[in-house]
Amino acid sequence: MKEQDVANELKILALESINHAGSGHSGSVLSCGDILYTLYTRHLLSSTLKNRLRDRFVLSNGHACAMLYAILAGLNYFDIKEMKNFIKYGGMLTGHPEIDINGIDADTGPLGQGVANAVGMAIAETIMYARFKVDNYTYCMTGDGCLEEGVALEALSIAGLYRLNKFILLYDKNDVTLDGKLTLSSADDMAMKFRSMNFNVIECDGHDIEKIDNAITQAKKSVDKPTVIIFHTIIGKDTALAGSNLSHGKVFDIKEIDELKKRYNINKPYMDLSIEAKAVLNQKHLKIIKMLDKRVDKFENYMQNNDKIKKNYQKFINNKFSFNIKHRDEIMSTREANGVVLNEIGKTVENLIVLSADLSSSTKVKINDGGQYSCTNRFGKNIALGVREHAMGAIANGLALYGGLNVITSTFLTFSNYMLPAIRMSAIMNLPILFVFTHSSIFDTPDGITHIPVEQLDQLRLIPHMIVSRPCDIEECVETYKWWFTLRRPICMSLSRCNLPSFPRYENMDKGAYVLNPYKADINIMASGSEVCIANEVKNVLKDKVKVNVISVPSIEIFEMQDRVYKNKLLKNPLFVIESSTCAKYLKYAPEEQIFSVKDFGRTGDEASLKKHYGYTAEAISKKIFKILKKLKIFE
Amino acid sequence: MKEQDVANELKILALESINHAGSGHSGSVLSCGDILYTLYTRHLLSSTLKNRLRDRFVLSNGHACAMLYAILAGLNYFDIKEMKNFIKYGGMLTGHPEIDINGIDADTGPLGQGVANAVGMAIAETIMYARFKVDNYTYCMTGDGCLEEGVALEALSIAGLYRLNKFILLYDKNDVTLDGKLTLSSADDMAMKFRSMNFNVIECDGHDIEKIDNAITQAKKSVDKPTVIIFHTIIGKDTALAGSNLSHGKVFDIKEIDELKKRYNINKPYMDLSIEAKAVLNQKHLKIIKMLDKRVDKFENYMQNNDKIKKNYQKFINNKFSFNIKHRDEIMSTREANGVVLNEIGKTVENLIVLSADLSSSTKVKINDGGQYSCTNRFGKNIALGVREHAMGAIANGLALYGGLNVITSTFLTFSNYMLPAIRMSAIMNLPILFVFTHSSIFDTPDGITHIPVEQLDQLRLIPHMIVSRPCDIEECVETYKWWFTLRRPICMSLSRCNLPSFPRYENMDKGAYVLNPYKADINIMASGSEVCIANEVKNVLKDKVKVNVISVPSIEIFEMQDRVYKNKLLKNPLFVIESSTCAKYLKYAPEEQIFSVKDFGRTGDEASLKKHYGYTAEAISKKIFKILKKLKIFE
Repeated sequence: MKEQDVANELKILALESINHAGSGHSGSVLSCGDILYTLYTRHLLSSTLKNRLRDRFVLSNGHACAMLYAILAGLNYFDIKEMKNFIKYGGMLTGHPEIDINGIDADTGPLGQGVANAVGMAIAETIMYARFKVDNYTYCMTGDGCLEEGVALEALSIAGLYRLNKFILLYDKNDVTLDGKLTLSSADDMAMKFRSMNFNVIECDGHDIEKIDNAITQAKKSVDKPTVIIFHTIIGKDTALAGSNLSHGKVFDIKEIDELKKRYNINKPYMDLSIEAKAVLNQKHLKIIKMLDKRVDKFENYMQNNDKIKKNYQKFINNKFSFNIKHRDEIMSTREANGVVLNEIGKTVENLIVLSADLSSSTKVKINDGGQYSCTNRFGKNIALGVREHAMGAIANGLALYGGLNVITSTFLTFSNYMLPAIRMSAIMNLPILFVFTHSSIFDTPDGITHIPVEQLDQLRLIPHMIVSRPCDIEECVETYKWWFTLRRPICMSLSRCNLPSFPRYENMDKGAYVLNPYKADINIMASGSEVCIANEVKNVLKDKVKVNVISVPSIEIFEMQDRVYKNKLLKNPLFVIESSTCAKYLKYAPEEQIFSVKDFGRTGDEASLKKHYGYTAEAISKKIFKILKKLKIFE
Repeated sequence: MKEQDVANELKILALESINHAGSGHSGSVLSCGDILYTLYTRHLLSSTLKNRLRDRFVLSNGHACAMLYAILAGLNYFDIKEMKNFIKYGGMLTGHPEIDINGIDADTGPLGQGVANAVGMAIAETIMYARFKVDNYTYCMTGDGCLEEGVALEALSIAGLYRLNKFILLYDKNDVTLDGKLTLSSADDMAMKFRSMNFNVIECDGHDIEKIDNAITQAKKSVDKPTVIIFHTIIGKDTALAGSNLSHGKVFDIKEIDELKKRYNINKPYMDLSIEAKAVLNQKHLKIIKMLDKRVDKFENYMQNNDKIKKNYQKFINNKFSFNIKHRDEIMSTREANGVVLNEIGKTVENLIVLSADLSSSTKVKINDGGQYSCTNRFGKNIALGVREHAMGAIANGLALYGGLNVITSTFLTFSNYMLPAIRMSAIMNLPILFVFTHSSIFDTPDGITHIPVEQLDQLRLIPHMIVSRPCDIEECVETYKWWFTLRRPICMSLSRCNLPSFPRYENMDKGAYVLNPYKADINIMASGSEVCIANEVKNVLKDKVKVNVISVPSIEIFEMQDRVYKNKLLKNPLFVIESSTCAKYLKYAPEEQIFSVKDFGRTGDEASLKKHYGYTAEAISKKIFKILKKLKIFE
């Protein structure tokens, strides 16, 4: 059986699945089908996600997943019967690729993200290769729309900068996007654009298996540059809608699929493959496994002869590192405190990788003796990504997906908005990344309205699965790292630029919210970060009239994990909240009148003037609290 | 007095202001000072923001604002004494440029945004030129870091696509970013990159006034392409930190500034300019005003001879349009309803401009007979921007800043995350843009987890000044447009993909929340969008046991503007809430147990299965409500 016929059978299977689901994207199945077929049957060494030496593949144009699923089914990644449940509720094969499916290296869907994920994976490979000779390629499929996204463009510059020669971008250039011809939305000379970003550029017919094969073979030989293969393809190829954007989200009916089958001269069972095609695919699969086994053997031989490296490798991939931080009783900002903690941890936790979006001088998120990662130093633990916050987030996701590394990013809290789509993906995939943000309050910067965070903390807290931490001092910074190491979930940590004292405390810091110096009090004040200090001042101002317990809340999400008894204990007194943010999540604990929140954007000015302006002084807050207590008839 | 000396005086003034403020960015003052001087004294025709024919200027690298302020002060845009209050609380000259300052055309700070704003202004100019011969240039200053941002890259492709020949990008290429040499974070060949995006590229010494002048003169002559002038400059020029990233955020002390003054051979009063420099600048300013007056005369002559066009122009710039929509009682999705409303409104509101990020086929946000904007049709009302959501948001801001146009954008609600930094800027600047988002609920798409909105609605609601609307039918869509036209504020509107009925109602729809068919009830249920339908079903299920009033909440923000009497009337009964979102803002009105919200990401599946899965059926909700009422001992 000719290979083109096998590829065509897989395309038909994909179209049938879309028809069966009543939803999906048929146009791209026919546009990228031959490329994916060639990649998976001749080059991509993979068979299960458990194999850490597998080549990685990211379908950044995730809507083309029906074709990918058909190929994975054909190559025994999972049972072909699963195709019948494509997009169905409870089925394994979701509307866009998800990592719970064997063979899927990254959740994709929002365009551009996948390209950046793949760049992250390729960076991870260079790190793991330098240390352990872990050796694989990273392939990424993309399309015209995907490459219009800023996050993809940011990441591609990084691939060129770091000369990721084992990163191969398969560009399904069908010159069509959902709304029409590509000329409607782009006049870019893409080959030139890639060359400007330090890429090898190969142009190739995307519907000729041998030519595709040759192009990929050539790309794999690159020594010092990433490669893009611009595959010229036809969307909806061989159908009445060939070349038209109308084929993009089209669900072909059975009659149309039958016509295509006739045109392809294919006779295969519905929602299945012919015995001949299966035989070809089985053979291909075995060959791929053999090639992958060879790579594994080579790696294991290397490990056997290097016991120290082997042990270290095991520590990396199983994250068998621990740390022990001594208490420091110093006045400093929590960004500085975090810098201290990070560098202490870095002494024993060897697999830390720190990404920065050009603000490490200010965020202080840097491993001082970790070296700068570069194309000549793959051992460097600090990776500069330029002013590319969005790509930083998505590249962090790629590094985390690759495995074996503890990834940290940093920028200012306001700019978390730039990273939000990537941060959301980290939560969806539950990737244990520590996203550090500094300049956490409206009093933290003289740079004016655009640099002042107000709603960002709550916007991050709203993301399902996300843990947000806002430490008040170095101890709570350390605690955040403990959560990160034990829970293995994504955490956003927000840090101050202002100097803050370190607080003495006794217990329950690990519970996300806890009373500092508890005693029998009349009211409680919850606060986080720099506002814990203000809450303490309020406590002192009020002390002759009202007894106050200050509850430090480094993390609402961790607090929410505690049992009801513990939670109720903290919530039983009349409760006030002080936080320099919109405070939406605290509405669960206290009525709006008792929450000191920010309702407007900040403004330019010095800390003292702004605190006065916004009424965030101990005097102003104490006065208001006392007034409310009187109104509530708690004190008269 | 030599012009270079005048420019140097202005640089010294900027450095003194930074020193006086104790904060600011000195490096870029010395790097872009000569370019800004030349632009403002020889080319940029502007003097007050009131002049609609002025050239526009956006300082996308907003941190360089001290230099811009110094020049604006020197050219009498405002009193030079204001420099003493630079970055001070209550001062006019904020830490980054803000549009409240005369001479500032856009708030900037978050990098990349300004480039996209300027592209939006340049698009606006082509539209206003085609219709009214409003004729001006748009200049934008950018730097190495600014051009690393995806939003800038997205927007530049648009500038090339639409052949914005009056868009001139002044690229202060000092090859340094905050964290170090540019080579640390970029290996891009920027000239080639710009050429790939259809730009003219001019390279120029950025410290030679005559050469800068020539380059700008040449750029202004471009007929069919935007132009970038790559100015080669030195950060921190002429100081001990010349060429070093350490000059970036440096505050030079008086001694260092004195050394520079000596080097420049300048003798000027502290925080002021010499009489000679003032004389030169005054003369320059008068010349600029003369040139601008000439432009205004030409325009006014044209208007005088075209009475119909003049009237229409007045209607555009004063937004003197109205609309009148008939009620339709049809079952349709609110995305379809909005399409109907938009096209009805488009019949009389001639200045509507609709931007789309390649999903207009799905969002239905399109003016059907409005034509497609292109470089050969500047009258087209639909502007395709490709899959570039972030640039779409920032370009919308630019169009709105230009004035005279009513701007609408559209994409899916999940992808609002991609646009968030730009949406935030629209709220900061209070730009009346209508951001439309479809696929508004977790039941609205079979595309799986990455395409399903959960937290987005609340994330938008958290932005200060933002109004969020989630209509339940066509009537509430119309109401949203009324809010837009009367309040002149940014609005995010979220629309369903599922079909929904149209509801009969009597009054108070304009109040953001109101009772549908009010009668004497035991409890109230608040709901928005597609969940109003579920709330009505719950009302029917419960009717023999509990009397329910359904409160439709198209906009919490509008509801919050109402007086206490009205609000209390709606909130007095035991209140339940049903919304397919995280529902954070409703915590203000009801305890968490009484809010039916989504706490997790969605999943792939059909509407009916997912509603069952998440307990969003009338049966499941009614049961729960009844159980809670029993627990509350309201019914026993």
